[in-house]
Amino acid sequence: MQPFRKIAILGIGLIGSSIARGVKRGKLAERVVTFDGNPANAARALELGVVDEAPTSAAEAVKDADLVIFAVPIGAYAELGAAIAPHLASGTIVSDVGSVKMAVIRDLGPFIPEGVHLVPAHPVAGTENSGPDSGFAELFDGRWAIVTPPPGTDEAATERVADLWRSLGSSVEIMEPGHHDRVLAITSHLPHLIAYTIVGTATDLESTLQQEVIKFSASGFRDFTRIAASDPTMWRDVFLNNREAVLDVLQRFTEDLTALQRAIRWGEGEQLFDLFTRTRAIRRSIIDAKQA
Amino acid sequence: MQPFRKIAILGIGLIGSSIARGVKRGKLAERVVTFDGNPANAARALELGVVDEAPTSAAEAVKDADLVIFAVPIGAYAELGAAIAPHLASGTIVSDVGSVKMAVIRDLGPFIPEGVHLVPAHPVAGTENSGPDSGFAELFDGRWAIVTPPPGTDEAATERVADLWRSLGSSVEIMEPGHHDRVLAITSHLPHLIAYTIVGTATDLESTLQQEVIKFSASGFRDFTRIAASDPTMWRDVFLNNREAVLDVLQRFTEDLTALQRAIRWGEGEQLFDLFTRTRAIRRSIIDAKQA
Repeated sequence: MQPFRKIAILGIGLIGSSIARGVKRGKLAERVVTFDGNPANAARALELGVVDEAPTSAAEAVKDADLVIFAVPIGAYAELGAAIAPHLASGTIVSDVGSVKMAVIRDLGPFIPEGVHLVPAHPVAGTENSGPDSGFAELFDGRWAIVTPPPGTDEAATERVADLWRSLGSSVEIMEPGHHDRVLAITSHLPHLIAYTIVGTATDLESTLQQEVIKFSASGFRDFTRIAASDPTMWRDVFLNNREAVLDVLQRFTEDLTALQRAIRWGEGEQLFDLFTRTRAIRRSIIDAKQA
Repeated sequence: MQPFRKIAILGIGLIGSSIARGVKRGKLAERVVTFDGNPANAARALELGVVDEAPTSAAEAVKDADLVIFAVPIGAYAELGAAIAPHLASGTIVSDVGSVKMAVIRDLGPFIPEGVHLVPAHPVAGTENSGPDSGFAELFDGRWAIVTPPPGTDEAATERVADLWRSLGSSVEIMEPGHHDRVLAITSHLPHLIAYTIVGTATDLESTLQQEVIKFSASGFRDFTRIAASDPTMWRDVFLNNREAVLDVLQRFTEDLTALQRAIRWGEGEQLFDLFTRTRAIRRSIIDAKQA
């Protein structure tokens, strides 16, 4: 791809710093700069050499950038959007990495000046770690990046963003933003909510029992704790900003769980066996789709 | 440890065949034999060389054994117990590997002849795979094995079983059977139930959406599918045989989930953030306990 002149990454945590590293690795921009509301993060990114500059204001960071990427929790988009809007040059592409897409259009859309292109995106990749030190260039290799242009978006701008993600190692899927939010509510938001809940339930136990839960966590619980260690601010904002889709899928889940609860109470083994057999097939599909 | 003369493993699936391999590796018995209700499994184990003999009846398998290990789903214990009881020599130890312990005492206890020792145990280890081919000697290395002798059990017999598990590579914890069932309801049974449910909820989606769920499963869903691919018969029996403890912890979970649902509906970000911060600390404890 044709390298960008200057990429401004707003927020240099796990995802932001992984993008910066990937851009450096692929020589995808002449310059990479960052602004982070926490000056220590920006300074650390500079020290790590993953960015070229770390100006002290978002306005300064986006100046002359041909690509601006929001990599902060979604709740911070509107304020940051207002701060940078007057400093965006015509032709600039504004993108992001948020796990929710309709809210991005709602919160950033009104600030985007004429001639600037809003192309939201969501790399389906991450770890439970946070901060500039946790990033790595390989994070996006072989993963999906979903690009969700609102209706009427400039096609060349969409293609530029898609190209960036391909160059960062990902496969790109173009998706309608609302559809994205419904799919991710199932694949990501509900699993995180459930994991947070079950780990929370365990933290409420008396402390001797809690020690045993930790000791014997390898029996299943452990897998949930990894997910439930994800960034609290980011995830708070996901749930607040994809409320309808999350509540809808949560309702389905709760109905299904209640049915299972009833089957256990009444000793209906066949119903349990049937479900457990169906779910095994899904695992097989994921292995076949090389996503395991 | 002093090797056993003859270990009879009843059921030669993932766990049974892993024990057989571990016993061979550590030379922990002069002979290892198996009986499996599915003759193909027994034949395969013999072919793999993980057992020395595979008699066609459980009665024959346990004859002259000084250790008999039940490694079948819990629902099959009673019938198998009745079949072997008349053939157990005095001094024999009967143990098992089930994920539930009170039910073992309930179902096997009545069949155990005078002079035979029932010492239930539970290796906290496993994978989502099943069958004799899926076993491996290293499965128990560095994991916990919980030994749950009923009150009044011969101490030497308990120590023999504990020694076996140590020799198979595990750390041993002696625990009261009912307490085991409450701890595992939290660390293992509830997580499996939740994982089965969420994967089941996804299988009920219309098929185009289901394809997308598989495609983007790496965003959280995938971690649940691995757990939900565990053996259906075994898990049906776990839930049917640890009903009270599972329903109790499920009730707590449901209350907590309902509270979170309400927080999302009413936009109570602080409550979400507080929980997500607490759960992160639990992950840290698990890493510190070297169980991650």
